[in-house]
Amino acid sequence: MRRIDFHIEAGESLIVVGESLSEAVNYLKGENTFIITDNNVSRLYGSQFPEATVFEIDAGESSKTLGVVDELCHRLSERGADRHSFLLGIGGGVVCDITGLVASLFMRGIGHGFVSTTLLSQVDASVGGKTGVNSGFYKNVIGTFRLPSFVICDISMLKTLPESEYVSGLGELIKSAAIADRDLFFEIAGNIDRIMNRDTDILERMVYQSLRIKTSVVEEDFTERGVRRLLNFGHTFGHAIEMLGDMPHGMAVMQGMLLASRWSMLRGYLSESDYRELKSLIEAMGITPMTIFPGGLIELVRGDKKKSGTNVNFVFLEGIGKAKSEIVSFDEIDAFVSSIE
Amino acid sequence: MRRIDFHIEAGESLIVVGESLSEAVNYLKGENTFIITDNNVSRLYGSQFPEATVFEIDAGESSKTLGVVDELCHRLSERGADRHSFLLGIGGGVVCDITGLVASLFMRGIGHGFVSTTLLSQVDASVGGKTGVNSGFYKNVIGTFRLPSFVICDISMLKTLPESEYVSGLGELIKSAAIADRDLFFEIAGNIDRIMNRDTDILERMVYQSLRIKTSVVEEDFTERGVRRLLNFGHTFGHAIEMLGDMPHGMAVMQGMLLASRWSMLRGYLSESDYRELKSLIEAMGITPMTIFPGGLIELVRGDKKKSGTNVNFVFLEGIGKAKSEIVSFDEIDAFVSSIE
Repeated sequence: MRRIDFHIEAGESLIVVGESLSEAVNYLKGENTFIITDNNVSRLYGSQFPEATVFEIDAGESSKTLGVVDELCHRLSERGADRHSFLLGIGGGVVCDITGLVASLFMRGIGHGFVSTTLLSQVDASVGGKTGVNSGFYKNVIGTFRLPSFVICDISMLKTLPESEYVSGLGELIKSAAIADRDLFFEIAGNIDRIMNRDTDILERMVYQSLRIKTSVVEEDFTERGVRRLLNFGHTFGHAIEMLGDMPHGMAVMQGMLLASRWSMLRGYLSESDYRELKSLIEAMGITPMTIFPGGLIELVRGDKKKSGTNVNFVFLEGIGKAKSEIVSFDEIDAFVSSIE
Repeated sequence: MRRIDFHIEAGESLIVVGESLSEAVNYLKGENTFIITDNNVSRLYGSQFPEATVFEIDAGESSKTLGVVDELCHRLSERGADRHSFLLGIGGGVVCDITGLVASLFMRGIGHGFVSTTLLSQVDASVGGKTGVNSGFYKNVIGTFRLPSFVICDISMLKTLPESEYVSGLGELIKSAAIADRDLFFEIAGNIDRIMNRDTDILERMVYQSLRIKTSVVEEDFTERGVRRLLNFGHTFGHAIEMLGDMPHGMAVMQGMLLASRWSMLRGYLSESDYRELKSLIEAMGITPMTIFPGGLIELVRGDKKKSGTNVNFVFLEGIGKAKSEIVSFDEIDAFVSSIE
């Protein structure tokens, strides 16, 4: 078990990697707890939940709407929840996003914590305090910044993840290494077989290292005005690909990382050998780099929330373990995409 | 024109009482402005709006839903709004509540300001940073704390308010005086004819004084853990009456103040003469104290968001100009209501 104390101006979180769901009861705060989970997690692990009223949402991205948030707030009201109640989200990224947003909005804010059950949410969604839902086609345009008081990353729960979701989580793990930790990147590359076999020991270490990167970046820049943008490496294209292709988040981000790395190489920022290292690690996980891009990619990039006016903050690699953010115009993105289509 | 600089930990607001809508353009921040207003305000004053994309919502409480928030976020996305965009709410309490919530949620937070067009919003809703919508029958259970960068209170716009809305605003004005400023209370009572005639000079002074009270209370206790609760004087019953009786907010609050004052007197906190002063001022505005209470009042009080477990923070008067908050049980409230029904 490894702990990270995450401190920022807006609050603090305790992150516990390797703790188990059955111990969650010891972390609860507030007067009465309500659990938000999805139907898959509930079916597999419901018997290990702490005693509390449980609200289930449908698993999957389609639950990320204000309608679901509204319904949960309504049910909390009906069950007599108040300002001193506590929300425990048990699930992956969608459950974390929804739970965090409900905790931000219900009675103008109540306490919350997570048991993070997917690799993607363990290394990404559950920490950092971003909450969000979609509005129609616009992804995560509605949300808040709000820290959970704790995040439990139960590594043993990763065993039951579908393969595509597991690999999706590895995408964010590799992203963290690619932007900030060259050693971690090559440790992942050197242990890819054990990782693909979901070896608990190495996973606990990888998740912990990846969280160290994410938390130190977020501590420096909680509201994403500067260095935190680097965490969006692969996401400008990734978000667009995710929406067009109905692809799991981390897989779309890997495609986005490949595009962003290729562009970095074309601009002379990234060496060809580092580009090949990244490409071969991604291929080693069974991902085939996309060669044909669906129409509408540019339009979706334009709609991406990181844009500023007619420009966008785009993250380039300068080498494995080193990233930088630059403002690029949509015309430049357009020209780059056209050059490879 | 009178200015209040409102400073709290979470940010700061400039409040300008007596400024006019046509000058709003000089207060705008951010790169591009989107206006949120309602169909009534747009019809009456649309020609004086600053140049910007205008989104209209239906006037009235029925617009206070997450569905409307979702739609506005969607339209902002469609029109290319981003993190640097600015929202200007022009309207009364509902427009302020919605605009503030959209500003809290869109792209995880963008800037906003208000032109406050009703007396109720000038003295209450537009300052203090509370935003909120309803969830079914549960009033304001969904919301955030977020300060507008400015609030313009255009007194001349009060001329076109329907009488019931105007009197509703006076309810909150009287509330502020009743809990914190005995002199202001008797100044209102002594000038009730000029006030009912909507004399601009005296209104500007009254609105300003009332805002001085509200801002100093909120500066002391932004997140409503202590003294800010006193602003809820009349609101525990008021909210319930408002929902049952389909009554304008401030009028319901006046009924709530009468009940709370009567209870204060029964408990020996408030003198009978002060109770009569309050009652006669409210009657001078054409309000008839309720004598028969609709069924379900207690159930709605129990659902009120200020409750804590089986108790509620209830605000009593100790005299005109002095209030205190006490925790009372629902049984006590029940017994009090039964005693007067």
